Amino acid sequence: MSNNERRNFLKMGGAGLVGMAGILASGQAPAAATSGKIRFDVVSAFPKTLDTIYGGAEDAMNLLREMSDGKYDGTVHAAGEIVPGLKALDAASDGTAQVAHTALYYHFDKDDALAEFASIPFGPDARGMIAWMHHGGGNELANEVCAKFNLVHFACGNTGAQMGGWFKDEIRSKDDLKGLKMRLGGFAGKVLQPMGIQPVTLPGGDIMPAAEKGLISALEWVGPYDDEKLGFYKLFKNYAYPAFWEGGTQLSMTPNKKWWDPQPADFKAMFKAACMAATQNMLAKYDAKNPIALSSLMVKGVKVFRLPKDVMDQAYYISEQLYADISSKNPLFAKVHNSMTKFRDKHYQWHRLAEQTYNSYMTNQRGNRI
Amino acid sequence: MSNNERRNFLKMGGAGLVGMAGILASGQAPAAATSGKIRFDVVSAFPKTLDTIYGGAEDAMNLLREMSDGKYDGTVHAAGEIVPGLKALDAASDGTAQVAHTALYYHFDKDDALAEFASIPFGPDARGMIAWMHHGGGNELANEVCAKFNLVHFACGNTGAQMGGWFKDEIRSKDDLKGLKMRLGGFAGKVLQPMGIQPVTLPGGDIMPAAEKGLISALEWVGPYDDEKLGFYKLFKNYAYPAFWEGGTQLSMTPNKKWWDPQPADFKAMFKAACMAATQNMLAKYDAKNPIALSSLMVKGVKVFRLPKDVMDQAYYISEQLYADISSKNPLFAKVHNSMTKFRDKHYQWHRLAEQTYNSYMTNQRGNRI
Repeated sequence: MSNNERRNFLKMGGAGLVGMAGILASGQAPAAATSGKIRFDVVSAFPKTLDTIYGGAEDAMNLLREMSDGKYDGTVHAAGEIVPGLKALDAASDGTAQVAHTALYYHFDKDDALAEFASIPFGPDARGMIAWMHHGGGNELANEVCAKFNLVHFACGNTGAQMGGWFKDEIRSKDDLKGLKMRLGGFAGKVLQPMGIQPVTLPGGDIMPAAEKGLISALEWVGPYDDEKLGFYKLFKNYAYPAFWEGGTQLSMTPNKKWWDPQPADFKAMFKAACMAATQNMLAKYDAKNPIALSSLMVKGVKVFRLPKDVMDQAYYISEQLYADISSKNPLFAKVHNSMTKFRDKHYQWHRLAEQTYNSYMTNQRGNRI
Repeated sequence: MSNNERRNFLKMGGAGLVGMAGILASGQAPAAATSGKIRFDVVSAFPKTLDTIYGGAEDAMNLLREMSDGKYDGTVHAAGEIVPGLKALDAASDGTAQVAHTALYYHFDKDDALAEFASIPFGPDARGMIAWMHHGGGNELANEVCAKFNLVHFACGNTGAQMGGWFKDEIRSKDDLKGLKMRLGGFAGKVLQPMGIQPVTLPGGDIMPAAEKGLISALEWVGPYDDEKLGFYKLFKNYAYPAFWEGGTQLSMTPNKKWWDPQPADFKAMFKAACMAATQNMLAKYDAKNPIALSSLMVKGVKVFRLPKDVMDQAYYISEQLYADISSKNPLFAKVHNSMTKFRDKHYQWHRLAEQTYNSYMTNQRGNRI
């Protein structure tokens, strides 16, 4: 079945032939599913150009196919192929597709608590996020929030700490941010807007055209590897770090709960393992690709600079106010935020010792060449 | 079959009934193996008391069993159950068992290059190690070195940065190290000995008895979670960080190559995914358990201190000399070391920006409570 046929079936019936095994499985006893193949669709919130993030879903599905000798087979669809990227969660939720691969902060309009499972300003780093998910109660909470939308949750990817964006001039104080029209990802705008930035939401492919027309005066995307491909260095020469709003952004794989629940145990175990492997693989890919792209950007005349302390401090203060405010209105957000922050704080108390002193020594010895 | 029977079979024939599926598989066409169950033994280099490290092998094997619905089933044996911990690699190499789970620096007497795949002084941190393995050519090199011993290599676990050990008094300069009789893990002794330390090798269970008898005057083991269980804080109150010899120690799963090669593709894919999931899970477990144990140790009167710069600098200098010396005699070590250090340096050049500045800001805001 071609992609076109597949799309037409999906458009016609909510789920086409490719989804029928899933539908049959959820309508029959689990035993029937055990004997049979499972075919399903994964709608990605991302374009193929983000090969590392988009690729996380493909990695997971390739591994699932390999492990099951083709018995379990999920097809990944890029943003716009079946539904627009920001509708990926809806598509899995209502059964248009069986699974979504997305960053849950894209969907905070449904519930702010969702953002906690991707990244919120001053959240944990990648290791802290992964540890919270698997050994700190994070994934149980993610499932509690996702169940509201008929979804099940698996962590499936992490970008690590991201860069703080591209600017015409170096930002020397919080006053330099005022009046910027900056392309931003969703939830971070809640903190950057009170700092005087006008947030603009644009998908990846639309950022450069908007910058060329002068519709935005600054932007943030991911990090060196992804940013270089989109060519931002041609218009902006000052590259900030760190993105205090993306300290360790997590991607999520969210199957439709009604479809998922009756699936056989071996399928569930493989799916879970594939998502864990893909998480590790995405972070490793970024850790391998970002340094090369960073060097390349610097050769092209890009100057990196650290966001000044007054920017960080103001953002931190606004974030704390924001979380208190949302918590007072949304008990589920309060519950998730309380779990995350308690875990995060213990994490940093521990990482402050061996991890950070080891890495700062190594950076001074080996990482200070640029 | 009981563990005793299993052991007897293994002693008698090199591989018992439990290994027969593997033997049959390697003697027959791969297609025959596809239809059949695979039963095998994993010899761990670790005692069960190291539940996080030892547990990494069990996590991987539990996941394999779950994914294959019991078709593929590896039984993990603690150190001493079939062979002593330090003989784990030999056991997989000569077919006494099918697979070993170990830290490859235990076996540097076979080839110093093996140590690079666990940890050497001033190696990469956990993320750097994982990225090097999967996207920097590290695992290809590990397979090249392991093939010399009839083994295949999979990363299967990482402890993160470890603590620098337990001392009677705080170490204030490199002179304070001179004359210490210190329990140490293998390869690190090559650097610590020239600093005036007398290295003593002891398995976990023998450390406290030796300390009580005054046979050692300092020791290092892993980190807060493992160290607290062994009770070192009862005799030593000064706890150093970081272990510059264990910045991100990796565990390895090494199947016997002759047994592994003819196994079916789905088994291989599941085994690989299980090891990747176990790697992530081990690091997450340590990241969740270490902070709690650290707080508990501090309540018990333990004082943490950072190893002084002159200790780090002397160790760094000695390490560089050591690596140059080994490289001049061992081309395989030179090849592996060159690959690792190039990758590590780029890693730190990149992590110096977003990762380290984000984490140092968060540590100041949230991690400085102790």
